[in-house]
Amino acid sequence: MTQPTAKRFAPPPLDKLPEDIRARIMAVQEKSGFVPNVFLSLAYRPEEFRAFFAYHDALMEKEGGLTKAEREMIVVATSAANQCHYCVIAHGAILRIRAKNPLIADQIAVNYRKADITPRQRAMLDFAMKVSLEANRVSEEDFAAIAGHGFSDDDVWDIAAIAAFFALSNRMANVTAMRPNDEFYLMGRLPKA
Amino acid sequence: MTQPTAKRFAPPPLDKLPEDIRARIMAVQEKSGFVPNVFLSLAYRPEEFRAFFAYHDALMEKEGGLTKAEREMIVVATSAANQCHYCVIAHGAILRIRAKNPLIADQIAVNYRKADITPRQRAMLDFAMKVSLEANRVSEEDFAAIAGHGFSDDDVWDIAAIAAFFALSNRMANVTAMRPNDEFYLMGRLPKA
Amino acid sequence: MTQPTAKRFAPPPLDKLPEDIRARIMAVQEKSGFVPNVFLSLAYRPEEFRAFFAYHDALMEKEGGLTKAEREMIVVATSAANQCHYCVIAHGAILRIRAKNPLIADQIAVNYRKADITPRQRAMLDFAMKVSLEANRVSEEDFAAIAGHGFSDDDVWDIAAIAAFFALSNRMANVTAMRPNDEFYLMGRLPKA
Amino acid sequence: MTQPTAKRFAPPPLDKLPEDIRARIMAVQEKSGFVPNVFLSLAYRPEEFRAFFAYHDALMEKEGGLTKAEREMIVVATSAANQCHYCVIAHGAILRIRAKNPLIADQIAVNYRKADITPRQRAMLDFAMKVSLEANRVSEEDFAAIAGHGFSDDDVWDIAAIAAFFALSNRMANVTAMRPNDEFYLMGRLPKA
Amino acid sequence: MTQPTAKRFAPPPLDKLPEDIRARIMAVQEKSGFVPNVFLSLAYRPEEFRAFFAYHDALMEKEGGLTKAEREMIVVATSAANQCHYCVIAHGAILRIRAKNPLIADQIAVNYRKADITPRQRAMLDFAMKVSLEANRVSEEDFAAIAGHGFSDDDVWDIAAIAAFFALSNRMANVTAMRPNDEFYLMGRLPKA
Amino acid sequence: MTQPTAKRFAPPPLDKLPEDIRARIMAVQEKSGFVPNVFLSLAYRPEEFRAFFAYHDALMEKEGGLTKAEREMIVVATSAANQCHYCVIAHGAILRIRAKNPLIADQIAVNYRKADITPRQRAMLDFAMKVSLEANRVSEEDFAAIAGHGFSDDDVWDIAAIAAFFALSNRMANVTAMRPNDEFYLMGRLPKA
Repeated sequence: MTQPTAKRFAPPPLDKLPEDIRARIMAVQEKSGFVPNVFLSLAYRPEEFRAFFAYHDALMEKEGGLTKAEREMIVVATSAANQCHYCVIAHGAILRIRAKNPLIADQIAVNYRKADITPRQRAMLDFAMKVSLEANRVSEEDFAAIAGHGFSDDDVWDIAAIAAFFALSNRMANVTAMRPNDEFYLMGRLPKA
Repeated sequence: MTQPTAKRFAPPPLDKLPEDIRARIMAVQEKSGFVPNVFLSLAYRPEEFRAFFAYHDALMEKEGGLTKAEREMIVVATSAANQCHYCVIAHGAILRIRAKNPLIADQIAVNYRKADITPRQRAMLDFAMKVSLEANRVSEEDFAAIAGHGFSDDDVWDIAAIAAFFALSNRMANVTAMRPNDEFYLMGRLPKA
Repeated sequence: MTQPTAKRFAPPPLDKLPEDIRARIMAVQEKSGFVPNVFLSLAYRPEEFRAFFAYHDALMEKEGGLTKAEREMIVVATSAANQCHYCVIAHGAILRIRAKNPLIADQIAVNYRKADITPRQRAMLDFAMKVSLEANRVSEEDFAAIAGHGFSDDDVWDIAAIAAFFALSNRMANVTAMRPNDEFYLMGRLPKA
Repeated sequence: MTQPTAKRFAPPPLDKLPEDIRARIMAVQEKSGFVPNVFLSLAYRPEEFRAFFAYHDALMEKEGGLTKAEREMIVVATSAANQCHYCVIAHGAILRIRAKNPLIADQIAVNYRKADITPRQRAMLDFAMKVSLEANRVSEEDFAAIAGHGFSDDDVWDIAAIAAFFALSNRMANVTAMRPNDEFYLMGRLPKA
Repeated sequence: MTQPTAKRFAPPPLDKLPEDIRARIMAVQEKSGFVPNVFLSLAYRPEEFRAFFAYHDALMEKEGGLTKAEREMIVVATSAANQCHYCVIAHGAILRIRAKNPLIADQIAVNYRKADITPRQRAMLDFAMKVSLEANRVSEEDFAAIAGHGFSDDDVWDIAAIAAFFALSNRMANVTAMRPNDEFYLMGRLPKA
Repeated sequence: MTQPTAKRFAPPPLDKLPEDIRARIMAVQEKSGFVPNVFLSLAYRPEEFRAFFAYHDALMEKEGGLTKAEREMIVVATSAANQCHYCVIAHGAILRIRAKNPLIADQIAVNYRKADITPRQRAMLDFAMKVSLEANRVSEEDFAAIAGHGFSDDDVWDIAAIAAFFALSNRMANVTAMRPNDEFYLMGRLPKA
């Protein structure tokens, strides 16, 4: 049912991929019931695939001052600003599930300033957006603004690093015309999801 | 279940509204099962309410070279560029229903250049976005670009007028912090919807 | 002496127009001595014509905390930002007359920050410009800034709604290449005007 | 009747100015009937005054492929983009007089793309605006576009140099809050002007 | 002689770092004679350090249709657009050395459109800049423009991926106020370097 | 060794130039050991040459509250924002020499917010950048911000006038594709320079 992703940078067939990459893809298939297209798109370059997911997991799967849902909020807000089709739809789904909130992803994607989030989350997204859109202007005032909300230096690094990592991710997805799988659109929207 | 809209510009209670406005609100309630918040928000000013919906209906409910789904595409694309929470969510729902396509609204909202639309629809949205974002630069080249896709002058007026009308609508929704009703988020996403 | 407006969207001849529209045009001709081109341009679409002027009159002809001259200041400032030929010239004339000030329209059109206006009018225009140019960022700080100048909530709605309505109007004028009548350029500039 | 210019950088009284500067000011007073404020503002710095007017006269008073009216068109278009109160009003007056056209200055100031100018003048202003707003992107394509309209290399230098000189002038006028004399607003607007 | 990098995100002392990271740092120290600050800054987070340099090396140290100097051109051009102090200075040095050209890095950093590069390199940088600054608008026209210069699909991926990776890198360097080592400023500028 | 500057606007040979201009060029040749290309480029127009250098010297060679190095900082920061190849490279060299600091020019060119400068110099550059990039928005707040750092009104005029003068200079250099002489790149970078 999922439409294939763009053909310009077609990855090799699954059985030609390096073993570790094929194993990761099969594991996600088993867990999710489908293979998110980002895994297939980036398999075009095995070395970059490994570095990409190692970086991703280091930022998104860790424990710390930010919840996993909050990490996804950063992804959705910055990816929407970058008009990244894949990341907004796919991470919007993950955000709905992690936040157990069927409305939050669309709210943050359209205009995070109007979303139903806490003042702490608003400060987190303001900082993330500055890193995403004009990191050259990040100043002590920005650190002071976010410090008032109880984030540790480690948390601030996480916020910045997630915004920075998806600056990379959004650009790769846009250039490769990466498509979100159809399955993502409805995930986390239904009461029992 | 729907959260109320912002309180700064609270409309009078329903039974204090002029008869024609109350009647319209009750009709939409009957048809939709809920009252979209735009009707309540704009009831703050009955004369503007009447002009707004007269304008809206003249553009969105008419027959012509654009389908109703295509008219909603223009709304969603330009409202996303203006980061209008209400219009993207509410008209996204209407677009899904009119296009009988559960994915199209999110695709257009994130980046209409990547959406599954026809070249004719792409030209329509390119023109609409230019009207929305830099109408001062609309030139004969823009009319020529869209003319190649079989739009009549009347269709071009419709495209421009819808983009222009929602320039107004997006600004009012943003200033009044108009909230989309919760019901909109899921509308048109399920197979039988 | 007045040059005709653009020919792409030519309205039907006066005697083919619906009676109410012809009557309004003849009334303005009688009052002003000429027919402002906006009436002819929008007569291309009678229903939209009626909604447009109903909306316009509800905002521009009403009493309230803003003087009629101040309402025109909002039109001139936001229309200049949108580079709307028709609105800057035509409403600049109306502003000169309503303010009984031959210099004010040009000052506001070029750079309202340098115009001879009161601090209250400056705050009004700052708010209107934010609605016109980045309504998605209007925040409580903007409401607080303008509240300090004695505007009621109703006045703030008026400021926002005028800026929003001319966002529509500027776009229609730009797309239709609407020309201001030559008569407007000199109106209100002479001592006895 | 003319309001004084801003007081932050007040020039010395006329009788304390160097003789050559006083002489130039008195000559312009005799010719125009008033002293344009730019002469008083820049007299704050005699050396810069001399260089400024030497540069100005070298570009604006010369003969060549551009008429004097066309030179003023460049000033008005680029000064409007820079929102320079003094230059738009004062040079708008000079443009009206030199072009013997009471409408042209306002048209160019609001949106030169809609002004009643020739295709050659449009190309001239497109080039000038690129120099004014993004000279870093001027490319061979821009030279090719303007070359098609019969401008010599010397004319192209003039266009660029006028845009560049008023980039300086607009900034000085904005920082010093230079006010146009009231006399400029009406100059060239009346049939016999 | 090198000033230390910013203190907010201070890495642990060298002897507390994981062995593989300490080894890499010591290897670069041996090879270069100093430790580029990026290694110290990112050691704050060992897992991210490993992913970062794995990604970096996969893109920058590989063979292929782009020379190593050309890869550095992409880094310098996009990092200059992002105003990244560390990357422009450090990679400018590497570019000078790899291109054996003491002028090229400064030329590309200031305005790559004026640099002494080939038309093929210009097309490469135009594409890279689009990925860096508006990847959401990358279209078939951009692929067509670069295809004319003999780049393979693999080369185009490299160009895009380098621009995307340094979008991440520039943001981390800006947020952490990463300082280039003083040694970089002069590297590759002298005949014998 | 220096490559010639662009050929579109070629100045007459040295022996055809007016005596005063030839003399100035020979004097700078004697002092510097080479003729900076700006002298040759602008000799295309002797009158403008004279006005340009008179203006330049009045601002850059004077005594006052700003050191000569600080004046060059303004040139480098604003010219980098305008992507002016000639001015960043040539004035970067002069800045290194005047500041006796081999790193400062590159730091300011890349991102003056990260440069090793004093808070007073940072305030000076913030003001200069506002004049350079959005003089239309210079307000009393900007004057207040800089006043706190002990600048006199005369110093503030200097800051503004240097930014304004190089707005002109950057545009002329970009349009004429003026090349910095190769000699500039290394000047002031070596300990004994």
